[in-house]
Amino acid sequence: MNAIILSIGDELVLGQTIDTNSAWLSQQLASVGCGVLAHVTVADDQPAIEQAIGHASKRCDLLLISGGLGPTADDLTRQALAAVMNQPLELNEQWLGELQKFFAARRRPMPEANRIQAMIPHGAKMIFNTAGTAAGIESVLGPCRVCVMPGVPKEMKTMFERSVLPSLREASGGAAILSRTLHTFGMGESAVAEMLGDLMRRDRNPSVGTTVSGGIVSLRVNFRFSSMSEAKAELEQTVAKCREALGALIFGEEDESLQVVVGRMLKSAPSSPTIATAESCTGGLLGKMITDVPGSSGYYSYGWVTYSNRAKEELLGVPTELLAQYGAVSEPVVLAMAGGARVRARGTYALAISGIAGPEGGTPTKPVGSVCIALAHPNGAEARTFLFPGDREFIRDRSAKMALAMLRYHLLGQKAPF
Amino acid sequence: MNAIILSIGDELVLGQTIDTNSAWLSQQLASVGCGVLAHVTVADDQPAIEQAIGHASKRCDLLLISGGLGPTADDLTRQALAAVMNQPLELNEQWLGELQKFFAARRRPMPEANRIQAMIPHGAKMIFNTAGTAAGIESVLGPCRVCVMPGVPKEMKTMFERSVLPSLREASGGAAILSRTLHTFGMGESAVAEMLGDLMRRDRNPSVGTTVSGGIVSLRVNFRFSSMSEAKAELEQTVAKCREALGALIFGEEDESLQVVVGRMLKSAPSSPTIATAESCTGGLLGKMITDVPGSSGYYSYGWVTYSNRAKEELLGVPTELLAQYGAVSEPVVLAMAGGARVRARGTYALAISGIAGPEGGTPTKPVGSVCIALAHPNGAEARTFLFPGDREFIRDRSAKMALAMLRYHLLGQKAPF
Repeated sequence: MNAIILSIGDELVLGQTIDTNSAWLSQQLASVGCGVLAHVTVADDQPAIEQAIGHASKRCDLLLISGGLGPTADDLTRQALAAVMNQPLELNEQWLGELQKFFAARRRPMPEANRIQAMIPHGAKMIFNTAGTAAGIESVLGPCRVCVMPGVPKEMKTMFERSVLPSLREASGGAAILSRTLHTFGMGESAVAEMLGDLMRRDRNPSVGTTVSGGIVSLRVNFRFSSMSEAKAELEQTVAKCREALGALIFGEEDESLQVVVGRMLKSAPSSPTIATAESCTGGLLGKMITDVPGSSGYYSYGWVTYSNRAKEELLGVPTELLAQYGAVSEPVVLAMAGGARVRARGTYALAISGIAGPEGGTPTKPVGSVCIALAHPNGAEARTFLFPGDREFIRDRSAKMALAMLRYHLLGQKAPF
Repeated sequence: MNAIILSIGDELVLGQTIDTNSAWLSQQLASVGCGVLAHVTVADDQPAIEQAIGHASKRCDLLLISGGLGPTADDLTRQALAAVMNQPLELNEQWLGELQKFFAARRRPMPEANRIQAMIPHGAKMIFNTAGTAAGIESVLGPCRVCVMPGVPKEMKTMFERSVLPSLREASGGAAILSRTLHTFGMGESAVAEMLGDLMRRDRNPSVGTTVSGGIVSLRVNFRFSSMSEAKAELEQTVAKCREALGALIFGEEDESLQVVVGRMLKSAPSSPTIATAESCTGGLLGKMITDVPGSSGYYSYGWVTYSNRAKEELLGVPTELLAQYGAVSEPVVLAMAGGARVRARGTYALAISGIAGPEGGTPTKPVGSVCIALAHPNGAEARTFLFPGDREFIRDRSAKMALAMLRYHLLGQKAPF
């Protein structure tokens, strides 16, 4: 089966927004063995959309369209599809009902403009949108199946996973790519590649590749096979070899984040440990990350953002002399912050972060990117000083992740390799 | 003049790499008044490339191609172009000389494979590559000008800026697109569109379009003009009309975020006001957003993450009875949180957030998405209850932004429209 992915939007052809939907859809299609012939992007221009739909539908078995389903006058995808189908648009009463419920729940009248989002071409099928107000559309053009989804990535992804992918998976009948993703944190991409050695050989199948995003170096293990038999075992064997090469550096798989993994470790520990946070330069980001995880209230209740010295003294009891002698970005001060937070939260662990996120505030001895992190635990405390490269956002992100990584290695009872 | 941008690469259609070249080229073309009809991406597959070149060259004045000029067997763009031109490939002696110099300078023999990078179709023109080993190719197909550039972004950009853009700028004779972006928060896209009314008419120039990202509804004002004279004034006039239609709903322009704008308002107020935060369901996200802004230490020092009832009582002095009577997600409790934070920080303002971010914890009277936000200020306090749609991440993001928006309207001395 071969697909074409069509993205619609002025902001895309004008280059004001980078299209990430097409790459995501391609990956999804690869996972069910569906080849992608082309990505095509056109503006919110009805003749152009019609031309693109007409041309593409003659060349593939599956045409995935995203964008142009909004409620405003520049959203023209449904009109274009109706024109190519040579069918009128008609109101889908079921989706109109959903829209009315949506607005009623928000105690707002439904704007008249939103009615168009319940219109689909005669003979087409409505696809439920669980994440927004635009109904999706499924139809056929000759032998080509056409699915129209919203352009907002989150809505598109949810709709694709719920309403399109299952039938494709069924149709694929086995030939496919099996993939697994393993995540590491704390070492650079080339260091990870060196540790993997021969596993990254280009002609290996299953193949092992690395990608980096947000400081997380991920391993992507891909296995191309033509029959499902023994495929999973083959993939598992390569995954096991990667784990052997990298050990505890691998913290998670697939969509697991550091905060999910650390949260699971805390939750599953028999002593029901808790964690508190004391943040200076990260300003709440570490608390935010910990509470990304549903159910984090089971182990997290207390956090302090102490952005000034006075706040560190008042809220966490950091001694004035310590601040004066060593400065706010120092191991003695983060140790005092973590200790103060742990005592005040009456908790098991506390993490504290203080650093210089920039762009101002650096000094020759403490340049921008200098960050001290401390972990207080029942048997004492430890502190580390890091020098992160990059801009303010980068430094803050790495600081919060590094704090979680320090806690993770402590919970594992292992020495961190960084 | 109208262009089509064609990108070539297996990694692109497989979704392993996100195409950023097309967006960059679109922006460059816009700056010289060249419209972009479509972005097209195909694999390293000669028949597919030929088909794409043939189809596109009939529909535009300028076809920009990037990718597929490498030295390996899967790089087939030059062969495909030669086939569509119906011309043989021939060696360009000048570029072969450059290649030999390139490798000699690195004291390495030139691999035989690199010879292909000096081959261009008979009748085509070689484009110099100052950043890599692949020569670019310029040619015509009927009335369409075709430029082939390497896929590596750095090589492509350098080649485009040096060898393609100058002639386009000359040809444009001043025609161009001027753009401005205005940001709003607090009303849905369709409500904003309704307020803009006729300004969003499709045939208007300057045109006004809306896009949504992270709950921020942005207006893009684009002005296509054929001479620079009075162009800026024309754009400003439409911007002024948008401002008139939306009033204070517009919080910023271009790359300004809510936190940047609120921070600037606090910083520029003569009384040097400060803001403290007390967060439950957002877990530190509001503090993180406020401290995204360099220099936020000038108005922010104190934040509390009180994720449990006990933490709300102990750290902020929320009365136990209030929590028992109204529950943690209630206006009385967030008012007490904000009041407690304001007093403890000895500050001017305090924002407090308590809500149910889900996926668990919803009840019939307080479903997932219910969020109470309070602002304590020198003359009292106000609280609002919201019901946000979406998942945990969405609800937390909108809660923090809404808190900033409430503070912004208070600082403006205006009643919020939401």
